[in-house]
Amino acid sequence: MSLKVSSYRTLLRNFCSHHGHNHGGKSEKSILSTSTATLEIATKQQLYMLDSNSPGSVFFLPHGTRIFNKLLKFMKLQQEKQGFTEVITPLIYKKQLWETSGHWAKYSEDMFKVEGNDKSKFDESEKDDIYGLKPMNCPGHCIVFKRFNRSYKELPIRFSDWSSLHRNESSGALTGLTRVRRFHQDDGHIFCTHEQVSEEISKTIKLIKICYKIFGLNNFKMMLSTRPDNFIGNLNDWNRAEKDLSNVLNKELGENNWSLREGDGAFYGPKIDILLTDNFGKEHQAATIQLDFQLPQRFELRYQNDKDDYDIPIMIHRAIFGSVERFMALLIDHFNGKWPFWLSPRQAIVIPINNNHKEFANKIVKKLSNEIEDFDNPTKLNTNKFFVEIDDRNETIGFKTKDAINKGFNYIILVGDKEIESGKLAIRSRSNRKIENLSVDEIINKFKLLEDNYE
Amino acid sequence: MSLKVSSYRTLLRNFCSHHGHNHGGKSEKSILSTSTATLEIATKQQLYMLDSNSPGSVFFLPHGTRIFNKLLKFMKLQQEKQGFTEVITPLIYKKQLWETSGHWAKYSEDMFKVEGNDKSKFDESEKDDIYGLKPMNCPGHCIVFKRFNRSYKELPIRFSDWSSLHRNESSGALTGLTRVRRFHQDDGHIFCTHEQVSEEISKTIKLIKICYKIFGLNNFKMMLSTRPDNFIGNLNDWNRAEKDLSNVLNKELGENNWSLREGDGAFYGPKIDILLTDNFGKEHQAATIQLDFQLPQRFELRYQNDKDDYDIPIMIHRAIFGSVERFMALLIDHFNGKWPFWLSPRQAIVIPINNNHKEFANKIVKKLSNEIEDFDNPTKLNTNKFFVEIDDRNETIGFKTKDAINKGFNYIILVGDKEIESGKLAIRSRSNRKIENLSVDEIINKFKLLEDNYE
Repeated sequence: MSLKVSSYRTLLRNFCSHHGHNHGGKSEKSILSTSTATLEIATKQQLYMLDSNSPGSVFFLPHGTRIFNKLLKFMKLQQEKQGFTEVITPLIYKKQLWETSGHWAKYSEDMFKVEGNDKSKFDESEKDDIYGLKPMNCPGHCIVFKRFNRSYKELPIRFSDWSSLHRNESSGALTGLTRVRRFHQDDGHIFCTHEQVSEEISKTIKLIKICYKIFGLNNFKMMLSTRPDNFIGNLNDWNRAEKDLSNVLNKELGENNWSLREGDGAFYGPKIDILLTDNFGKEHQAATIQLDFQLPQRFELRYQNDKDDYDIPIMIHRAIFGSVERFMALLIDHFNGKWPFWLSPRQAIVIPINNNHKEFANKIVKKLSNEIEDFDNPTKLNTNKFFVEIDDRNETIGFKTKDAINKGFNYIILVGDKEIESGKLAIRSRSNRKIENLSVDEIINKFKLLEDNYE
Repeated sequence: MSLKVSSYRTLLRNFCSHHGHNHGGKSEKSILSTSTATLEIATKQQLYMLDSNSPGSVFFLPHGTRIFNKLLKFMKLQQEKQGFTEVITPLIYKKQLWETSGHWAKYSEDMFKVEGNDKSKFDESEKDDIYGLKPMNCPGHCIVFKRFNRSYKELPIRFSDWSSLHRNESSGALTGLTRVRRFHQDDGHIFCTHEQVSEEISKTIKLIKICYKIFGLNNFKMMLSTRPDNFIGNLNDWNRAEKDLSNVLNKELGENNWSLREGDGAFYGPKIDILLTDNFGKEHQAATIQLDFQLPQRFELRYQNDKDDYDIPIMIHRAIFGSVERFMALLIDHFNGKWPFWLSPRQAIVIPINNNHKEFANKIVKKLSNEIEDFDNPTKLNTNKFFVEIDDRNETIGFKTKDAINKGFNYIILVGDKEIESGKLAIRSRSNRKIENLSVDEIINKFKLLEDNYE
C-alpha cells in the first residue's frame, strides 16, 4: 500500500459524518418545524438545556441523562455480545499525534486547540504543551493497539469507546442536539485481517437492523460507496473488500435492497452509509461502516501472522447510533415525546387518593425505584429499578391523571383504601384506560418484562 | 454575606483535593515501593497504560475499564438512593464563566486553556472563543441550578456528575493513577437550606462508612476543619454550620472518633476531610465534604422560600471516592491485585479437560457472560452477566489452574465428560481447593449473590 495521502479533511468529514443532513426533498419549513417540535418536547420534559457559556455543548438535565444512559446501557450490551471491549482513552493529545494521524495538517481548523502553561518555552514553535481536543477516537485506539505485540490469534480486536468528542463547528451552525460541538458516539474500531472483514460487517449490519427495529425506525436505506479516483492502497485489496461488502449486503438485506454509489468511497477505503428517514421525511445519517487501509499504515500497526511474518491489520470504523446526541433528537421527533417504557425517564407515577394514602404511596415509589430508605446499608448491585415518582398534591385524581399523561408517564398507579387492604394496586397505562389490579411484585415483573423486550 | 473573596486557588486546592498525599510518617522508600507494586499489578493484569502523547491522562485498557465501570455502577446506585440525579455537563466553558467563578484570576495556571479558531478577531483580547477545560464540575452545576425558578419545596437538589476533569499538573509531578492531569470524580453537589445541612451531611457520612466497609478500608479518620481568619460570610452562618457538623460527627462516629482542626477550614465554608490509611501506612485523602457559602453568591443563585421571598442556597461539595483513578490505585494496593468477585475483571475461567469438551465449555462461557451467539436478536436489558473466559490451550489442567490463579481469576470451572453428562460443573475458588459441583444456573445464582453482597 502506498503512503500517499490526499485530503484528510475528507476522511474526517466523511467518517462518522456528524452532520449528514440530507433533506430528502422536504422544504426548509418542515425541517424547521421538526427542530422546533424537538425543542418544545425537550423543554417541556426538561431533557436538556443550552447555555451561552458553552455554545454547542449540551447540558443533559436529569431526565435527559436517564435516556442517554439507557441508550448507552442498551448499546453496550449489544456491543459486548459482538466481542467489543470498552476502553477509556484520553481527550487531549499532543500536536505530534495529530501530525501522525494527519489531522493537524488538514483538520486543525475544525479542532479545538488546548494549551498547557509551560512557562519555560517562550517561542510558540518550541512549546511542547500544545494539544488537540479529540474530534474522534481512532488515533487513541491505534495507540492502544500498538502498545502490545499482537498476534493473528487475537484478531479481531474490537474497542468501543464513549468519550466526549469535540468539533469546532462555526457558532452560526449550531442547533439543539443535531449540530453540536461536543458529542458522544457509540464508537467502535475493529482491527482485523482481510479474511475477517465479511463476518465483522455482517454482524454490524445485523446490529443496525436489530437497533432500528427496536426503535421502530423502519425507514432506512444502505449504500455502498466504492473506490474513488484518488484512492490509496493497492487495487487488489480494494477489489476484494468491495466484493466482500456487496456480498454481505446481498446476504443481509437482499440484492435489491441497497444501492451502489460508484466512486463515492473515501480515499482510504470503501464504506457503507445508512440513511434514516424520519416521520417528517427528513433523512439522517446515523450508522456508518468504513474500512480504513490508511490509519494502520500511518501508525505503523502490525500483527504477527501465522507464517512468522507481520501483516498490517485493516481498521473498521463503525457506529450504530452515530452521534448519541443526534440520535436522541431523532428519537424525540420519532416518538413525539411519548417514550416507550424501557427508554422513558418517567416510567410510572403513584397517585395517593387522599392524604391517608401518602405514606403507603411513598413506600411503593421507593420499592419500585429500589431506593428503600435504609442509609446504613448499600443498595444491591443487581437490581431492578424504575423511574417512578409520586404526585401527592391536593388535586383531584382526574386532574392528576391527565397531568401525568401530559407529562409522559407510561403508567399511573392509584393507591387508596381498597388497594392498601388488598395489596393489589390499580394500574393503567398512558394509552389505555383499562385498569389492572396488580401486587407490587407483579408490577415489578411486568415492568421488567417490558424492559427486557424493549417495549 | 460579604462578596469579598480571598484566594480562590485555596478553594480549588482544597476542594476535592486531588493531591492529598499525607505520608503518615512512612519513608519515601515505602511509598515508592507502593507505587511500583501498583504499576506491576496494573501491568500484569493489563488494567491501564500511559503514553507520551497524553502525559497524565490514563488509557484504561479493557480489564481496567471493567473495574472503573463497576465502581461507577456501585456508586450511582448509592447516590440514587440518597436522591442524587445525574447530569451530563459540558467540558469547556468560556473565559467569562471562569471569571465569575474566580478560577480565571486565581487558578488559570492550573487549567488547560482551549481555543477555537475564530479568524474574525485578530486581537487576542477581543477573541470570544477562549475557553477553560473544566477542573471541576461546580460552575456547570450552578448554571443548571440557576436556569429554573427554584422553590424551597424542591430542595435539596442534588446533582451527580461523572465528567472528565483536567488539571494542568506539572509534568514532573505525574505518577501512574495517583497524580494525573485527567481524572473523574464521583462528584456531587447539594443545594439546600441551612436546616437541611445536618441531614445531608449525616447521609453522606453514612455512605462513606458503607463504602469503606465494602472495600475493607477500615482504617480511616475524619476531621472537621473550622472557620479560618480569612473567612467570608456571616458569623452566625458559620457558627450554626460548625455546630451542625460536629453534632453529626458525634452522632455518626461517636464523640471521640473524629478530630478538630480549628481554623483550618476553607475561607468559603467549614469542611470534613477523610483520610484513609492503606496497608503500607500511607495516608490518602479520599472522601471530602465541604460547605460553600460563596459560590452560590458569585453565581447569584436563589430559591423562593416559604415567605414569598428569596434565599441563597448553601452548596455542599461532596465526593466519596474522590478521584476514581486514585481510588483505583488505592484498591490495587489494598487488594494486592486479588479483586473481590464483584469488582473483578476476571471473575471465572472455564477449562475444558480435553479438545472434546471445548464446544461445551464455550457454551458455558457464553451463558455466564450472557453473550449467547444470536446476532439476530438483542441481548435483554436486565441481565446478569459475568466476566468469564475460556482457557482451551493444549496444556495440563494443573498448569492452567495455576495460571488462572496467577492471573487473578476468582473461580475456575472444569468441564469434562462427567460434567457434561451430569450437567453439574466442577467449580473451585481461587483461594480454596475445595470443589463444588453446580449446574450453570446454580453458578449464576452463586455469582449473583456474591455481587449483591459485594463479596
